[in-house]
Amino acid sequence: MLVVGELINSSIKRIGEAIERKDREFIVKVAREQQEAGADYIDANAATTSSEEDNLEWLVSVIQDEIDAPLCLDSTNPEALRRALRKHRGSALVNSVSLEKGRMENILPLVKEYDADLVALCMSDEGIPDTAARRLEMARRSAAVIQSYGISLQKVYFDPLVIPVSVNHRAGAIFLEALEKIAVELPDAGTICGLSNISHGLPAPRLINETFLVLALGKGLKGAIINPLDDFMMSLIKTGEMLTGQDHYCKSYLRAFRQGKITEQ
Amino acid sequence: MLVVGELINSSIKRIGEAIERKDREFIVKVAREQQEAGADYIDANAATTSSEEDNLEWLVSVIQDEIDAPLCLDSTNPEALRRALRKHRGSALVNSVSLEKGRMENILPLVKEYDADLVALCMSDEGIPDTAARRLEMARRSAAVIQSYGISLQKVYFDPLVIPVSVNHRAGAIFLEALEKIAVELPDAGTICGLSNISHGLPAPRLINETFLVLALGKGLKGAIINPLDDFMMSLIKTGEMLTGQDHYCKSYLRAFRQGKITEQ
Repeated sequence: MLVVGELINSSIKRIGEAIERKDREFIVKVAREQQEAGADYIDANAATTSSEEDNLEWLVSVIQDEIDAPLCLDSTNPEALRRALRKHRGSALVNSVSLEKGRMENILPLVKEYDADLVALCMSDEGIPDTAARRLEMARRSAAVIQSYGISLQKVYFDPLVIPVSVNHRAGAIFLEALEKIAVELPDAGTICGLSNISHGLPAPRLINETFLVLALGKGLKGAIINPLDDFMMSLIKTGEMLTGQDHYCKSYLRAFRQGKITEQ
Repeated sequence: MLVVGELINSSIKRIGEAIERKDREFIVKVAREQQEAGADYIDANAATTSSEEDNLEWLVSVIQDEIDAPLCLDSTNPEALRRALRKHRGSALVNSVSLEKGRMENILPLVKEYDADLVALCMSDEGIPDTAARRLEMARRSAAVIQSYGISLQKVYFDPLVIPVSVNHRAGAIFLEALEKIAVELPDAGTICGLSNISHGLPAPRLINETFLVLALGKGLKGAIINPLDDFMMSLIKTGEMLTGQDHYCKSYLRAFRQGKITEQ
């Protein structure tokens, strides 16, 4: 599974403050810790800072000066994305587009120009559909638009979008069903999601997020935007990959265990 | 999910000894603890004792004298099953039949006579098939035999059988695929399994068993033969049920949380 380390996000207080004071050392430390813990992409989000355009570009520079990892550019601001992509080495992951007005036409030309990978949210101006069939329909319509810009579906991860199960008791089931439908109907594309929304408003959120991750992995989820410093979550991913036939001779699991990266809680 | 509490099994040393010395108090205590922790059935296994026939019947008596719960009669010995079923109040779960020679014809008449529920293993004298399609085929053939005795599939739980992932790295994937196929092709029947075999020979077995349970629940597993005193495992079941849309208004999860039955590790 593709792990996007979610910690460099300006909505987290100490991160937002570090970005504002241009604390290169702190940002690099958080990026490095996530990479060492197994993150494939380092998320970079400066959306709530004084200047997203300046600060997202700055994040790309300071992180990639020190760390050999691609970034997930977490923005819907075309100018911020343009400057960040220009600075980025290798293939970035742009998060995100959707069928909301203006999103595709402003962002897809940049994705194409910089050969980036792409997260596409299964929603439009009418919000997040409340059935799996209609989320699949969003993915299909998005796929058509994305391909019309000459972007291959192999570069795309659909996010069926997680709603709290406290809001709709079928939210988890609908998400998992949408995930499976997208995997079957659009097999060239991947799927990705953040998790923590599922547990919003309920006690023991960590347990809920963990259980949900395993269920989603079982339905073919290809990427997760998570905290890679959560050892137990990372252990669940390794174990889930092994139990779904993705780990030849259990090699990857056993290597992780030898490295002390498998924890039972 | 139907939870079968697995602890009263003579192959566990202190249980085998308690059965041999007819320690009624100890057996009742273990049964009661499991029921209070949420077990729907109490497993009773006396297979490795001096007389399975006498001891299985004794287990039924002492447990049901004190506790209002049905038992899972864990035996392939027709005479032991006959005596246990005669003593049992309510509908027992007989574990198990298979397509191995003699099993069906010796046990199904008893299951029919006593209106018991039934676990049917997806195997024959040739062993456990190594593909999901052939395990489904075993389930189909078993279903035909079982129905020919006038037993409804609604009384039957198929066990696709868990092989260690250390023996075959696709063992988990094959099991999960078999589970899904059986749920789709034989929707009147349920599915059930023990878990712990999956982790045999690997480090951190508890993590592997837990992850596997959640994956299986996501594929529609209806019953699990587990240790209900494992609070974390029981928490995962409650959470998994909620996240797969089986818990209206999250009521069952929230009640379990208020009762202190939800633990995050």
